[in-house]
Amino acid sequence: MDISSFPALISRPHSLVEAVPFLKNRGVQNLFLLADPFVATSGQLDGLRAAIAEAGMVLTEFSDFAGEPKMGKMDEIIALTRGANCDGVIGVGGGSALDMAKIVSITLVADRPADDYWMMANPLPPQSLPSVMVPTTAGTGSESCSTNIIADRNGHKGWVWGPETKPDLIIHDPVLSTSLPAALTGWCGMDAFIHAFEASTNKYAHASARGYGHQAIKLIVDALPTAVANGDDLVARQNMLLGSAWAGAAIDQVGTAVAHHISHAMATLAPVHHGHATAIGFEVTLGWIVEGIEGDDVAIEKFQSMADTLGVRDYRDVPQFVSDFMDACQIDRRLPQSFAGFDKHALVEQLLADHTQSMRVATSREVTQEAISEIVDRLAALPIQA
Amino acid sequence: MDISSFPALISRPHSLVEAVPFLKNRGVQNLFLLADPFVATSGQLDGLRAAIAEAGMVLTEFSDFAGEPKMGKMDEIIALTRGANCDGVIGVGGGSALDMAKIVSITLVADRPADDYWMMANPLPPQSLPSVMVPTTAGTGSESCSTNIIADRNGHKGWVWGPETKPDLIIHDPVLSTSLPAALTGWCGMDAFIHAFEASTNKYAHASARGYGHQAIKLIVDALPTAVANGDDLVARQNMLLGSAWAGAAIDQVGTAVAHHISHAMATLAPVHHGHATAIGFEVTLGWIVEGIEGDDVAIEKFQSMADTLGVRDYRDVPQFVSDFMDACQIDRRLPQSFAGFDKHALVEQLLADHTQSMRVATSREVTQEAISEIVDRLAALPIQA
Repeated sequence: MDISSFPALISRPHSLVEAVPFLKNRGVQNLFLLADPFVATSGQLDGLRAAIAEAGMVLTEFSDFAGEPKMGKMDEIIALTRGANCDGVIGVGGGSALDMAKIVSITLVADRPADDYWMMANPLPPQSLPSVMVPTTAGTGSESCSTNIIADRNGHKGWVWGPETKPDLIIHDPVLSTSLPAALTGWCGMDAFIHAFEASTNKYAHASARGYGHQAIKLIVDALPTAVANGDDLVARQNMLLGSAWAGAAIDQVGTAVAHHISHAMATLAPVHHGHATAIGFEVTLGWIVEGIEGDDVAIEKFQSMADTLGVRDYRDVPQFVSDFMDACQIDRRLPQSFAGFDKHALVEQLLADHTQSMRVATSREVTQEAISEIVDRLAALPIQA
Repeated sequence: MDISSFPALISRPHSLVEAVPFLKNRGVQNLFLLADPFVATSGQLDGLRAAIAEAGMVLTEFSDFAGEPKMGKMDEIIALTRGANCDGVIGVGGGSALDMAKIVSITLVADRPADDYWMMANPLPPQSLPSVMVPTTAGTGSESCSTNIIADRNGHKGWVWGPETKPDLIIHDPVLSTSLPAALTGWCGMDAFIHAFEASTNKYAHASARGYGHQAIKLIVDALPTAVANGDDLVARQNMLLGSAWAGAAIDQVGTAVAHHISHAMATLAPVHHGHATAIGFEVTLGWIVEGIEGDDVAIEKFQSMADTLGVRDYRDVPQFVSDFMDACQIDRRLPQSFAGFDKHALVEQLLADHTQSMRVATSREVTQEAISEIVDRLAALPIQA
């Protein structure tokens, strides 16, 4: 097992401002704040900005982005932060904001564009600028992960990868996630649940990934239905954030499996929320995986151990548990309008594309071409949102 | 919750030599190796020494110590390593070796004696030298902990504390622990088990400490009886090392409780292995704690959750489970010869001493003076080793 480090973490309501003394102690004078546009204009960062000013640090902010990270946007951010001589970074937001903030924290150390590190084209500098990551959604686990999703200049989704991009400190301030609507809370939370589930049960699952994965599952199973039903429940929000960070640590070690494979493939066809597509892909394939591992003692041990953690007696009942849990989390199983009559052939092609095979291969049951056809048929049979 | 980081970790048979490229990449040229005297002369480090030479690094070694760390010994080590301009540290051994190696990795950065950092008298330098810690026993969890036990010049046991002393990399090479005799394997393993148990059930136990604690318990319950019965089982040894490191992370967050309190007090009276005394203190008090938490819903939830992880239906049956588990791990419940007719009054005094009250206070049931008398009577009634 190779396990990269888990960053220091503060988890407390109203802890966002604790980023300031932390960075000040590390000598930061010109601080860069990359925040989600919604968060940046919500008033939620006013206390942080005041604390930065009071600490005598110069603040440079950026929030002019939408959707997933792109190289063109990174050019803007790097030009801005180089111009301001930024020597420390705070990222506040969902996975996209944190991925961009993590990339800039390492890119600023060297005088090279982010492209040079895309898909591990060159080794990263050995150490990033002092950085603090503050997730406002509980889903991607970007804050505890080495992977930073970014599309290249041709729009191809890829990543900048390296434990060097992990922050020096994670802050979980549950107050910042109370404004997330119920549907998004559910989708993001299912993404974290499935990270933990797939990393605990895929072919590469080992003792450490399973340790983080199972603890994440325990927190998420308890907290997600409450976080969806009552967005202001700070304990549920806080436990979801920790569960999501642990699930991020689990995939950081052994990756995901077919549900994420389906989700990535679907996203190339039409806009769909990553957590929504992943939840749908998970439910459509889980029963099929469980049926197919009969006689495979290694896989059965992993699924039975997951059943034990879920409080389910027999691993063959886990798919029903998951469907019930998705009901409890009010997960919409309909595909978005943009998927009405989608091109099944195009989806099959994406699922067979060379560069995404790692998730397919990691799955505990072999995902054959026949299986892919069957999965796509099941997706095509799902209802469409009105 | 404030959670300090968990270091990067490599866990693999024969992975000890992987320390060399890791430190070389961090620019280390004059490497200091502090190894347990037994390990240093066992031939187990020959491959490491050869790899260091091949990498062109200058090696300085130290193994001239016995028992727990003392300031006088640190003087010797610091003089040696300053003289050799050491710029990187490997510690190989049990808790004492790793604690000393961690202290020297931070002390070498500043031009001050280790005394200056004893009991947090001064803030530590912000960053230690590049360091790798390689535990050869699975018990203390020193490699993932901020605490480094060391006695001051008057022989008072205390510590140098700080997350800055954690290593950059932990290596778990199970081959190095195969030579540990069965009794020591059991005692060290029980120490780790009780770290995880106390950190998951004490008054301060929170979601994160419980996460690490429960996963540690799951690994240890499976692996320890095997590691004791068959010391050459590399999977059991590897899982014990990971369980011990996770248990170390759990106590790093919320500390221990009364079993460790008893163990520390006993050690002031006469020589006794820390794990042995802790196991005895745990068994003598666990049933008493469980009886005493009736009506305390917060404590019951923690103990019932521990019961679930242990596969025990009712938390009131956990003490019996623990006794059976100690049988399976061949734990000797007799006190060492040196405790024959020990001074009960002196032990009571130690258990009431001011500077050790944190562990007493952390216990889920109030440890009153009456309770202390009763505990000491139970200890005095134990059989003595022949």
